[in-house]
Amino acid sequence: MQPHALPAAEAARLIRDRALSVEEMARSCLDRVMARDRQVKAWLFLDPDLVLKRARELDKRTAAGLRLGPLHGIPFGVKDVIDTSDMPTTQNSPIYPDTRPGRDAACVAIARHSGALIFGKTDTVEFAAGGRKALSTNPFNPHHTPGGSSSGSGAAVGDFQVPMAFGTQTGGSHIRPASYNNIYALKPSWSLVSREGARMSSLSLDTVGWYGRTVADLKLAAEAFRLPELPQPEIQVKGLRVGLCRSPVWGRIEPTGALALESAAKRLEAAGAIVVPLDLPPAFDGMAAARDLISADEGSGAFLPEYLAALPIMPPDIKARVERRGSFDAQKLRAAYTLADGCRAQFDGLFGPALDVVLTPASPGDAPEGLHTTGDAIFNGIWTLLQVPCVAIPCIRSARGLPCGIQLVGPRFADNRLLAIAEACAPIIDNEPNWARQTLLG
Amino acid sequence: MQPHALPAAEAARLIRDRALSVEEMARSCLDRVMARDRQVKAWLFLDPDLVLKRARELDKRTAAGLRLGPLHGIPFGVKDVIDTSDMPTTQNSPIYPDTRPGRDAACVAIARHSGALIFGKTDTVEFAAGGRKALSTNPFNPHHTPGGSSSGSGAAVGDFQVPMAFGTQTGGSHIRPASYNNIYALKPSWSLVSREGARMSSLSLDTVGWYGRTVADLKLAAEAFRLPELPQPEIQVKGLRVGLCRSPVWGRIEPTGALALESAAKRLEAAGAIVVPLDLPPAFDGMAAARDLISADEGSGAFLPEYLAALPIMPPDIKARVERRGSFDAQKLRAAYTLADGCRAQFDGLFGPALDVVLTPASPGDAPEGLHTTGDAIFNGIWTLLQVPCVAIPCIRSARGLPCGIQLVGPRFADNRLLAIAEACAPIIDNEPNWARQTLLG
Repeated sequence: MQPHALPAAEAARLIRDRALSVEEMARSCLDRVMARDRQVKAWLFLDPDLVLKRARELDKRTAAGLRLGPLHGIPFGVKDVIDTSDMPTTQNSPIYPDTRPGRDAACVAIARHSGALIFGKTDTVEFAAGGRKALSTNPFNPHHTPGGSSSGSGAAVGDFQVPMAFGTQTGGSHIRPASYNNIYALKPSWSLVSREGARMSSLSLDTVGWYGRTVADLKLAAEAFRLPELPQPEIQVKGLRVGLCRSPVWGRIEPTGALALESAAKRLEAAGAIVVPLDLPPAFDGMAAARDLISADEGSGAFLPEYLAALPIMPPDIKARVERRGSFDAQKLRAAYTLADGCRAQFDGLFGPALDVVLTPASPGDAPEGLHTTGDAIFNGIWTLLQVPCVAIPCIRSARGLPCGIQLVGPRFADNRLLAIAEACAPIIDNEPNWARQTLLG
Repeated sequence: MQPHALPAAEAARLIRDRALSVEEMARSCLDRVMARDRQVKAWLFLDPDLVLKRARELDKRTAAGLRLGPLHGIPFGVKDVIDTSDMPTTQNSPIYPDTRPGRDAACVAIARHSGALIFGKTDTVEFAAGGRKALSTNPFNPHHTPGGSSSGSGAAVGDFQVPMAFGTQTGGSHIRPASYNNIYALKPSWSLVSREGARMSSLSLDTVGWYGRTVADLKLAAEAFRLPELPQPEIQVKGLRVGLCRSPVWGRIEPTGALALESAAKRLEAAGAIVVPLDLPPAFDGMAAARDLISADEGSGAFLPEYLAALPIMPPDIKARVERRGSFDAQKLRAAYTLADGCRAQFDGLFGPALDVVLTPASPGDAPEGLHTTGDAIFNGIWTLLQVPCVAIPCIRSARGLPCGIQLVGPRFADNRLLAIAEACAPIIDNEPNWARQTLLG
């Protein structure tokens, strides 16, 4: 297999064993980008010379016998709303055509100091919030969206251009592209991973996460970010209690999404899991609307700098968000926070002897046609507002050959336990071998 | 009166009326800095040429008849944990000796686009969180602390070097220095003012606020930041219902702090306010501990980049915060969040016909002696965790001639109403005329 097609965890092992150099890995990824970029358009900034320079620096560390971080040598894409010290950060906005913040975002600094090869900046919905869309296409069909707002990160990992990448989620910007691009994703519990240096849109919602091609990949980064709580015992699927949650927004499901959820449930059941329907308490019916209100009201302050500095080139939907401030309703916002607070405590309380993990859609269906849309975040917003960890796992192919995944959700701050559960469930839910996937791509 | 001694609102009016140029204002502030800096040491970065250049740019706007922002021409200090496009941001840390982020933090961008003259960077406790202290001294007595972590911002405004400055608060870093430096401060409701580009320590707690020398000054910036909800009717102190809240941490009060609270209450009562003791519900007894836990656990992720990149020069207290991650207790953290959530809703619910505003200590007493301490944040942490707006108002002088203020607190997102109440109460609580103050300083 070409190095670029390796999952991160396998590449990391080969690099550690000196069976693969970081430069070889980097060159393979660059070749893949060259071959595919005209179609997939995942990158807003990519400097091959810089990539190779950094790769050789990492190889020197290996050669010197220095202590190697868990991500040593892994090419890592960075959504272009996240700052990088040695590359521009444009937020895909004409307001920031060539901004160089000169400092790594916290997540980039942590990845870099854990040995990651920061590869380039991936295309994104403007500000990860609205305005113009990414130019990136779905690796499985260029007439379809890769999802968004983490469009380029999802497409780059899905297209085997890099094994891992950072995304962000405020509504469904991280987990939904995972579903559309046939890849794995972790959206960690809110506040566990520093979001400093990632464009701010909503304090309560914005979350930095990462993509990989296996759960083992996601765990590599979880180790680098020291996610609690370690260590986790190995999980057995037999007897695992899975709550099948259609969620209060089930009315928005599409046939492909319904099939993915049903397939995952059946596969788990066949492997001995105890799958039981999970109806969320009535208060959760208001969560999608509460998320929208919180996102809009928190955004009204977050985008004021651009409103004052660059009104004529500000996207109308972001402009409207700032102008909400004029009719701000404190009582409604307080009610939305209070609803979310109550649901968080209720949700965490569901877990215990009767429930290990929640299985729920990662997207309404497969990737919609067209690049004017990034798909519908409705199946993600509730979990974002709950601030709980979510893991996306690939599941099925739709009738038109596009992937559709599901997500597993756990209680707040049990991220490593959720990853351990996902690692046990992944080979069952995602029963198409990794190598088979690439043959489907151009 | 020298221009540097003017409150911001008065200077802004004179500048708007072309009775004072921004350059004259800037030169007056620079003269004051020159005269006092050897003692007060408020600044980590101050470039007089840059200040004068920017001042002349602002004067050109005035001369051109352009629309002027609410802060037009007002010299504004910036705590050095907040990014500035044209100055370094060191966080008072040897880890970032000369970092130039090349981009304004959101609050700086908003102030700049509202006409503020970004004056320089003020000294701070390292990262606004721990490690080394600022070198700044209290303008009223150089052997005493100006408080912290917003040490330089508090001292610079208190010493009449600039009329306004930004601070931040995670525990009591913004309101407490106001009390020690005889100035006014607003800590806005959490999430209303973007904290993007201000050093992150705790997502739930970190809040950007500003200092001024009158409530009218605070309102100027509130207008620039479009704080809801406008417009507010004028408030009458007669009949105003004031809850006198000693708070669950009253055991930590000092005689000066007790006298300030009592004096404010008596003065308000004499002016016709209805002052009644307010005992917070029992759950609030746990808020101080909950704040400490949330601050520590959220900080464990926030400081991981420095831990990985610069461990040998990392302050031991910050290092310990990161290492907490090893014994992370999800259940305890969830319980702390749940307690805070419940108290927030309860607190907001206290306001109505029976309660207009809460009066409570801004600090245990006056500024302690020595620069090894920044004083005790115990009377601030509860309100920070409640995410409610707080306004500091000067109140008394202690036996040793040092100022001690109080704070007024309102429900979340009613920041403008709180400012309106503070504007009515300030002349009663703070009954020492502004001009009299400066004669007390060197």
